[in-house]
Amino acid sequence: MKPPASIGQRLEEVDTPALVLDLEIFERNISTLGRSIQGKKIRVRPHAKSHKCPEIAKKQIEAGAVGVCCQKVSEAEAMVDGGIADVLVTNQIVGASKIARLATLSKRARIGVCVDDLGNLRAIAASGARLDVYIELEVGMRRCGVAPGEPVLALALEIARHRKLRFAGLHAYHGRAQHLRSLQERRAAIEGAAAAVRLSKDLLARNHIPCHVVTGAGSGTYMLEVENGAWDEIQPGSYLFMDADYAKNEWAAPLPRFGHALFVLTTVMSRPAPDRAIVDAGLKASSVDSGMPLVFQREDLQYTHASDEHGWIEGGPLPALGEKLLLVPGHCDPTVNLYDWYVGVRRGTVEALWAITARGALT
Amino acid sequence: MKPPASIGQRLEEVDTPALVLDLEIFERNISTLGRSIQGKKIRVRPHAKSHKCPEIAKKQIEAGAVGVCCQKVSEAEAMVDGGIADVLVTNQIVGASKIARLATLSKRARIGVCVDDLGNLRAIAASGARLDVYIELEVGMRRCGVAPGEPVLALALEIARHRKLRFAGLHAYHGRAQHLRSLQERRAAIEGAAAAVRLSKDLLARNHIPCHVVTGAGSGTYMLEVENGAWDEIQPGSYLFMDADYAKNEWAAPLPRFGHALFVLTTVMSRPAPDRAIVDAGLKASSVDSGMPLVFQREDLQYTHASDEHGWIEGGPLPALGEKLLLVPGHCDPTVNLYDWYVGVRRGTVEALWAITARGALT
Repeated sequence: MKPPASIGQRLEEVDTPALVLDLEIFERNISTLGRSIQGKKIRVRPHAKSHKCPEIAKKQIEAGAVGVCCQKVSEAEAMVDGGIADVLVTNQIVGASKIARLATLSKRARIGVCVDDLGNLRAIAASGARLDVYIELEVGMRRCGVAPGEPVLALALEIARHRKLRFAGLHAYHGRAQHLRSLQERRAAIEGAAAAVRLSKDLLARNHIPCHVVTGAGSGTYMLEVENGAWDEIQPGSYLFMDADYAKNEWAAPLPRFGHALFVLTTVMSRPAPDRAIVDAGLKASSVDSGMPLVFQREDLQYTHASDEHGWIEGGPLPALGEKLLLVPGHCDPTVNLYDWYVGVRRGTVEALWAITARGALT
Repeated sequence: MKPPASIGQRLEEVDTPALVLDLEIFERNISTLGRSIQGKKIRVRPHAKSHKCPEIAKKQIEAGAVGVCCQKVSEAEAMVDGGIADVLVTNQIVGASKIARLATLSKRARIGVCVDDLGNLRAIAASGARLDVYIELEVGMRRCGVAPGEPVLALALEIARHRKLRFAGLHAYHGRAQHLRSLQERRAAIEGAAAAVRLSKDLLARNHIPCHVVTGAGSGTYMLEVENGAWDEIQPGSYLFMDADYAKNEWAAPLPRFGHALFVLTTVMSRPAPDRAIVDAGLKASSVDSGMPLVFQREDLQYTHASDEHGWIEGGPLPALGEKLLLVPGHCDPTVNLYDWYVGVRRGTVEALWAITARGALT
């Protein structure tokens, strides 16, 4: 895959649509996260599902992360191929072919996996893989995971029966809480999750099963988990980029402010009428599942509608034909997944081209 | 990019999520289109923005298509690289770098482009490219394109001033009409578009400017354009696949019935509670911009919600952990754009693996 820009090029010369990373804001977001947990006893394991890029994972590890999270075996393979030595797959891995790949990968790096089913756990054990196994707890998201208490104990006891599996702890991630708009709602959700964690940890303790790590938390809540104290490890991903959906959240202490670092650079390709400009970034260039993108630093302009390859800009004064705009994607994760490269820009000049090697890593 | 399956493999062994093409239905859809226009004086130029795959473009041309359409220069490059000799870019191409690439491409194949702006037309002419130029007409979609009448004449006169540019005709595509649910609404929209076409053609004729081809029409309306008589060429794309959104349309004569040929194969990865099954295909595996996918041939099951890597299945009886389902994507075009390969299956066995070489072709 040919890079979409060249080092030293001016931002305004980059062809569009392009996925642009403002390196100053990106670096600031990494250090803002670090500062926010300074002095706290918490491990950071950022989620690589957001960035899908080993170069970025390395920067997170340089800044103190213990490793990364992934959602898919193929994402984890891309991370290990890219030099990352510690990957937790925060997901159930089901089916013979995926489990075999996980086993192969576990010979090359420290790999963790989540379970919520005894049969699946036994299939993983039968593969002979050496893995850290986390029990996924349902904490209010109503997605995967077992209920707190007895089901956790049953899985932990089964893990203990398999020599190559190590019971690493609990995976307790409340995805729905991330986008609850008020901090108060998010705090209530995280307190509910913490109750499920404590109940399960207490039961394990009464059964003399050490629970090393409770891992979870996203960019929208992580300081609430840190302050709560029931978690040992946080998994934020979007804090690097800050999309338009996250920007709709109430941001207040204890959460620090992150800046928009990820953009889709787009060109006005048609000015067919006084009331609209059409840009060359539609829904194949900026995922609209969580709403339309924002036009960066142009509050007078609205991106009102997307078709596959076109976007409608209204408001005004409207930009001229050929003018370029920066869009803040509605949702960063699926937008990143549409691109093969980050175009890293500092003060208007292309400084880095990072391959998104886990782009399209679905299996 | 490694193929996600192997020839001869059984469908149930293919790892998930995977983009599966039922070759029998796919071939039937191609012949259904051919039969529907048999004996009519109409050219077929299918839209490759839907499939992004030269192998499929070749099959369309074998079935009588004159060439294909694309939306982006990079898509057109992928088609020409894949052996397609005649490509119409049904879009405005703006900016020096894209115009230079269009000029280079025009030395390797017959290339058409759309214009709706005098300045952009002059920039294209200045590149020295030998191109078929179509004037894009606004026919009710409120996207790009000039108003009918005088603006068309002004552009046609300018095209005539440039020796290497050939005025090929009008591009008149009513995108919004494709998904109007009742056939009556679609017919009214296409009659409105036809009035804009006729007004513009008459003005060109009075000025002795031959308009060779009026091109447009999508899968949801094309027989209405054919019956109307104002069009010479149709551009259907989705007829190959038939997504869940198109299935919500009223399908009645003169439009033939196309079958669902495109699927996302997915696995149940968690059965955390009696009321839901979680599958491994979320919104990075099946685009949700036009609604959730359907569970194929399981009307009792509903795919109710998608997060990035997970889908919620409700209804029942629910499938077991590890069971595989076929999803009909909500919207085929952006779903195809998430994959690198089609897994072509005939009667349950993998028969073809076709690379989606224009996947991610955004510029």
